[in-house]
Amino acid sequence: MTKPSVLVVGLGGVGAIAALALSLNEKSTTTLVVRSDYAQVMSSGYTINSVTYGQLSNWRPDRVSKSVEDAVKDNGPFDFVVLTTKNIPDGPTPCEEIIRPAVVPGKTAIVLVQNGIGIDEPMVTQFPRNVIISGVSLIGSHNYNCVISNLHKDSIFLGPFESNSDMTVAWEKTRAFANLYQHKDSNVNSIMFDENVRKTRWEKLLYNSVFNTMCTVVDFDVSRCQILGLNDTLFRPAMDEIAAIAKSENVEVDEAKKDFYIHVGDGLFYTPSMLVDYRKGQLFELEVILGNPLKAAKRNGVPAPILTTVYHLLKIIQFKLKEKKGMVKINEKDYVGKDSDTYPAIFAQAR
Amino acid sequence: MTKPSVLVVGLGGVGAIAALALSLNEKSTTTLVVRSDYAQVMSSGYTINSVTYGQLSNWRPDRVSKSVEDAVKDNGPFDFVVLTTKNIPDGPTPCEEIIRPAVVPGKTAIVLVQNGIGIDEPMVTQFPRNVIISGVSLIGSHNYNCVISNLHKDSIFLGPFESNSDMTVAWEKTRAFANLYQHKDSNVNSIMFDENVRKTRWEKLLYNSVFNTMCTVVDFDVSRCQILGLNDTLFRPAMDEIAAIAKSENVEVDEAKKDFYIHVGDGLFYTPSMLVDYRKGQLFELEVILGNPLKAAKRNGVPAPILTTVYHLLKIIQFKLKEKKGMVKINEKDYVGKDSDTYPAIFAQAR
Repeated sequence: MTKPSVLVVGLGGVGAIAALALSLNEKSTTTLVVRSDYAQVMSSGYTINSVTYGQLSNWRPDRVSKSVEDAVKDNGPFDFVVLTTKNIPDGPTPCEEIIRPAVVPGKTAIVLVQNGIGIDEPMVTQFPRNVIISGVSLIGSHNYNCVISNLHKDSIFLGPFESNSDMTVAWEKTRAFANLYQHKDSNVNSIMFDENVRKTRWEKLLYNSVFNTMCTVVDFDVSRCQILGLNDTLFRPAMDEIAAIAKSENVEVDEAKKDFYIHVGDGLFYTPSMLVDYRKGQLFELEVILGNPLKAAKRNGVPAPILTTVYHLLKIIQFKLKEKKGMVKINEKDYVGKDSDTYPAIFAQAR
Repeated sequence: MTKPSVLVVGLGGVGAIAALALSLNEKSTTTLVVRSDYAQVMSSGYTINSVTYGQLSNWRPDRVSKSVEDAVKDNGPFDFVVLTTKNIPDGPTPCEEIIRPAVVPGKTAIVLVQNGIGIDEPMVTQFPRNVIISGVSLIGSHNYNCVISNLHKDSIFLGPFESNSDMTVAWEKTRAFANLYQHKDSNVNSIMFDENVRKTRWEKLLYNSVFNTMCTVVDFDVSRCQILGLNDTLFRPAMDEIAAIAKSENVEVDEAKKDFYIHVGDGLFYTPSMLVDYRKGQLFELEVILGNPLKAAKRNGVPAPILTTVYHLLKIIQFKLKEKKGMVKINEKDYVGKDSDTYPAIFAQAR
């Protein structure tokens, strides 16, 4: 019997460690898609500093491809596609387009190891005959120039999104993927089944929609914001907004999680991941972290004025990045002599 | 009869033009306090490009001093002190301390040509026997390296703050100052009496508390924010918050002002003054523009969630500036192992 084939797409620390974990287990054939780092990975591989899998030099998976298309040509078709990229639907390539060449209808299961809610929706729409699996990773892993630093034990919650058309099949695929990922020594990594993906994801938003977003607006670390009293003035009130929106979606978040997140970084003066992206000049995950929850708030009539304000401010900050990158262009003369209420339409028409 | 003596304090474009207007009229003896530009002003004066008062080279007032203390020694006591600095109560020197050496109790009238509300309160507290006059300037004047560019006709609304203990005396002083400032040719500048200072100032907040603040948070011009739909998502809703707070203070703002401000910069892609300050790395007028209105909101139980969110974000941005300037210092090790809810107290104690 041939081994299941897995494609890992995502250049960061999480993707590299996922490829490593799958490769070490030898239960699957694993292909990793590497774009900008391709030449370096082919010549000298990764340096791995992992609390989970140890120290490795010049490591690379047996199969490395420069693009999803190449991977399909060389090693497809795939039973699983694991996507660990940032999820930026308002960016140049939405996730469903990134993986489209590798998705065989009715065959390939899609594992989204990404933050946010509503990320399954475009997948279900585009790939209605495929299983969509949620992966929530607690690994803490970064890739700086092909040096992978993995600080926490590789722990991942796996479960089928509730939007799958056949949950029985979806659970089968989830268990099959978990088997490929679970290290033979059961203490090495930690694969947990997630019976309630929506709850898990909403609870993670208590952190991501609040701390990530506000620290990015002000370009400041969490602890400094807390010194200025933000726990009481914005962080807790904004978490309450997330909890209320979740409730309107029939998800009860664990109240204790709020205090957990208030204190998770006590004394650390660390930079949340969205701010890391922003400081690198990269687009950040605004829509799946904040836009989609606020769509639910609007749909269900739940007021969320703090997060709505932060969302619109961050949309501008993301737009600034896009303008700087040349992804959008404003011709100032198009707007001269025009009513500012018509600007959005003028801009839409100019695109 | 000796002429009344006026001291003008403030380095910017408004202060220089005020000194010029008073000097040209020759109804008062005018002293200007110039700090960092002192040597340059003494040697070569100002270059004036003014739509109101014309082109002048190497102009300076007869009396220039390096500090308020020097001005008092050389040319005091003063009948009027005109303050045109930024008003930053959370900065190193609050306005009442700047002018204190020049204020003779019971004699010197204080003219505050500054934005915001509540700016009279510290003055009334510190100088209860002095008249406090409001000046709202529409001049549009900037000082770049002793070159003064004045783009609009020098127009100023003058009126006594309602907090004056004796409004009759306060009006007398206001009329006296207006007489000193009014050009002999009545078409040159425009001095208007302000019968309702609170209303004038609250209406100006419709602009300053909304456009200035939000553009500063995102570091982006007004027109670009409008292209992204901010007229509807944040600007108008935030103006409604200001109007509601004003109403709770018994001030009815003119509804038409909202639309006026929405369109005042149509097609101009200009940078609001608070953002200009921020980009120069200067502290901005957060408390008098936004903090004081929100204190009124809290006192009167008026919800203002958008502006409250923006305020707390801007407080952090102002704090970043202070930290960069060395005005505040955070010793990260003071916070290690501590509960983040106690950070504000730790910081307060460390100061």
